Amino acid sequence: MHEFDTDTAVRARGDGFFDATVTDRWGVSGRPNGGYLMAMGLRALGHVLPHPDPLTVTTHFLRAPEPGPVEIAVDAVRQGRRLSVGEARLQRGDREYVRMIAAFSDLAAADGPTDVRAQPPDLPPREECFRPTEQLIPATIAQRFELYFHPDATGWMRNDASGSGEIAAWIRFADDRPNDLLSLVQIVDALPPAVFELGLIDPVPTVELTAHLRAYPAPGWLRVVVRTRNLIDGFLEEEAEVWDSKDRLVAQSRQLALLVGLG
Amino acid sequence: MHEFDTDTAVRARGDGFFDATVTDRWGVSGRPNGGYLMAMGLRALGHVLPHPDPLTVTTHFLRAPEPGPVEIAVDAVRQGRRLSVGEARLQRGDREYVRMIAAFSDLAAADGPTDVRAQPPDLPPREECFRPTEQLIPATIAQRFELYFHPDATGWMRNDASGSGEIAAWIRFADDRPNDLLSLVQIVDALPPAVFELGLIDPVPTVELTAHLRAYPAPGWLRVVVRTRNLIDGFLEEEAEVWDSKDRLVAQSRQLALLVGLG
Repeated sequence: MHEFDTDTAVRARGDGFFDATVTDRWGVSGRPNGGYLMAMGLRALGHVLPHPDPLTVTTHFLRAPEPGPVEIAVDAVRQGRRLSVGEARLQRGDREYVRMIAAFSDLAAADGPTDVRAQPPDLPPREECFRPTEQLIPATIAQRFELYFHPDATGWMRNDASGSGEIAAWIRFADDRPNDLLSLVQIVDALPPAVFELGLIDPVPTVELTAHLRAYPAPGWLRVVVRTRNLIDGFLEEEAEVWDSKDRLVAQSRQLALLVGLG
Repeated sequence: MHEFDTDTAVRARGDGFFDATVTDRWGVSGRPNGGYLMAMGLRALGHVLPHPDPLTVTTHFLRAPEPGPVEIAVDAVRQGRRLSVGEARLQRGDREYVRMIAAFSDLAAADGPTDVRAQPPDLPPREECFRPTEQLIPATIAQRFELYFHPDATGWMRNDASGSGEIAAWIRFADDRPNDLLSLVQIVDALPPAVFELGLIDPVPTVELTAHLRAYPAPGWLRVVVRTRNLIDGFLEEEAEVWDSKDRLVAQSRQLALLVGLG
């Protein structure tokens, strides 16, 4: 078992409930990463929906759970021929931490036209990119990945942000777990916040994150780029794109976040 | 009362339920428009959440309702100092049509930094834009607006799409209802699908649409641009931006849609 699979494992209890354990190994300052919690919830939903592939998932982060056991309540909302929709709540006792809604489909059966206009990020080869030490990014989640940052997106590490609002990196799991649609949900939320490259090194709690899973990733390294274009009165959107080793767009996300602490 | 307000009105029944009527006046081929149903659900949520302003809303379109009475069940999920989160279900009997989750806040109290990089769409003055006749766009929703299309985005009306995948237009309500955050949710979904300008004139049912409301719109005309960049095996994302008369970005949205009929 790879660590991503161990740490997102869910155990069916029957009656639409799953047990899981939030570890402290995918966190920043003791708060579990949002992509990690999303992957855990999607894994539970995958057990109750008839289609194999998450297609779009929206997560509202209500409160950050401490590491420890959680319960995931799932609800199959709709089951159609091409799509099914379900909802999951990650909770402990009567305290709900995360609510998510997702549509699943079967991407292998999708057979419509293809016309991709977006371009992969302009990332130099890994040997020309920057691999930060554990001291530079002390978050436990950073130890779960091998990350090679675009040389132009490392200013935030030394208080010298470029002002681009964009961070791009090569990424793979530290234990080289192969990627699939589930892990892409983790990858869209794995980089530091793009606003760091605007010079704003503050907590950026996510209000809502929506990820679209667009294609099965090919084996090998992924490239991920996060970008914030519009910061308005402290609220910002951050977009992510993930590209695979065959230059295919495999995931997109957009989140709404708040530059200062949530009330 | 303006027609948008009449047609999205909800009546509280107590116990978390609202009654409403889906009209046939905001439809395409007899199916009510998604933005219209979203606005109706948000109006119900606004009655039960303590914050005044919708901030982010995600809607899953499970089935298209026929016009007629519906019930909206709402659930206040979280109530915090700066944010509250709620869920709404639009249903008739035990048949659920739409499920949405939204965060509300108070944008007037937001006081963080602002740095906007996106640019308004490059739209010529209205007198140089194209105002289609009712015959050209027979959908009832088109009669609810005054629309002036960018001259480069009218090819789809005569089977001569530009291939840009982008449609931009000036827009206001036909009865000149002033815009607010609620009506922006309608506006992000009011244009024809952007894939029409790729020459793909097919039904494009929305799986999921997420709208971010970024600022109160100033009085006057809005500009809206919709864009599809990536069509992959029949699934596509469509993004919308809405800009106000003071050149401010007031709303963004992204939806995942399917080029052929849903199963």
